[in-house]
Amino acid sequence: MPHLVLLYTPQIEEALDWGELCHQLADTMRAQRDEQAKAVFPTGGIRVLALPVRHFAVADGGAAGVAANRHGAHSGDYAFVYAQLRMGRGRSTAVHHQVGQALRAVLETFFAPLQQTRPVGVTLQIDEGQEVYDAKLSNLHPLFH
Amino acid sequence: MPHLVLLYTPQIEEALDWGELCHQLADTMRAQRDEQAKAVFPTGGIRVLALPVRHFAVADGGAAGVAANRHGAHSGDYAFVYAQLRMGRGRSTAVHHQVGQALRAVLETFFAPLQQTRPVGVTLQIDEGQEVYDAKLSNLHPLFH
Amino acid sequence: MPHLVLLYTPQIEEALDWGELCHQLADTMRAQRDEQAKAVFPTGGIRVLALPVRHFAVADGGAAGVAANRHGAHSGDYAFVYAQLRMGRGRSTAVHHQVGQALRAVLETFFAPLQQTRPVGVTLQIDEGQEVYDAKLSNLHPLFH
Repeated sequence: MPHLVLLYTPQIEEALDWGELCHQLADTMRAQRDEQAKAVFPTGGIRVLALPVRHFAVADGGAAGVAANRHGAHSGDYAFVYAQLRMGRGRSTAVHHQVGQALRAVLETFFAPLQQTRPVGVTLQIDEGQEVYDAKLSNLHPLFH
Repeated sequence: MPHLVLLYTPQIEEALDWGELCHQLADTMRAQRDEQAKAVFPTGGIRVLALPVRHFAVADGGAAGVAANRHGAHSGDYAFVYAQLRMGRGRSTAVHHQVGQALRAVLETFFAPLQQTRPVGVTLQIDEGQEVYDAKLSNLHPLFH
Repeated sequence: MPHLVLLYTPQIEEALDWGELCHQLADTMRAQRDEQAKAVFPTGGIRVLALPVRHFAVADGGAAGVAANRHGAHSGDYAFVYAQLRMGRGRSTAVHHQVGQALRAVLETFFAPLQQTRPVGVTLQIDEGQEVYDAKLSNLHPLFH
């Protein structure tokens, strides 16, 4: 924990630097501080991962986009990104909101330019993990102590 | 929201038209109406995505299938599809059931013929999202207003 | 149910036998017995699936690893595995713990040697599914009755 997973439609693979997006999202998570100025997330636990899906269908499949013709040649070719952050229990509502707004700002920087050229839907959700068992086997964490 | 994610074993990649399955599932979601005859899902929010896994193990790994020899040459080569729909909170139990049955019927149409020729397990689950933060950055939704 | 999904960073694709790991995890799930010596999981429902992500960022992106130089040439190239098991409701806390420890032991056998040569973080979580709808279309289950 925390793990941020991004699933995206494959036609935007080349439209942005996904590795850089992952790094900026991880750095943003690392920079978060709670009400006591303590790091919200342990550095060694931060994981951001992105992978394209192979098949997909979005909304009405493109009909409204073609009709509106708001986006030129790509108007019916809807793309999306589905970003889900799962974090451990116990943070305050204020911290949830702060983390969400910070990640949202990174996503906005990356996707607002793309949204000038084509239809893209980006969803960001944060969940508190409700796991009934949790184990870590890591030789990363000691690097940060 | 809503997002329907299908993970499947790669040996059935060519066995059906996954893009068409995604489209029919999305259309089915779009057609759902609640007790007040209102659309259950906003069109612009519907996302169906499918991706094959790379490695897998199912059940006993094939032994029972080989022993039973019920499926000819493929008897020990179990396939599966794991479909998870996450929707927003607040719909009734009746709506959950109705949406589930409608999606189940689409899956059945696609997979019943395949199950005549090989072992395939299909699981469909619907979850109500319990997110503590949610943001949307979309230029899709305005197309449907 | 149960479904165990492993997402991993692609630089360790060739570092171990993922198919064998999936099989051992499935066998371990199949071997679990509850307090009444009854199988915890129905054999036909066991699914283990693994897929690499395409892009990722971990922790500080590698800086601490490079600084510590604890892992030779790979010191800043953090890998991770994110394993999530979702099982049905109703098992005891003792069973959750037992299943978790058994899966953890399999993961440890596979990843401890790799952790001798590079930084790898492995997370295992178990969730109880809280689905509001569940359907199965399977011709696997009858093989085990």
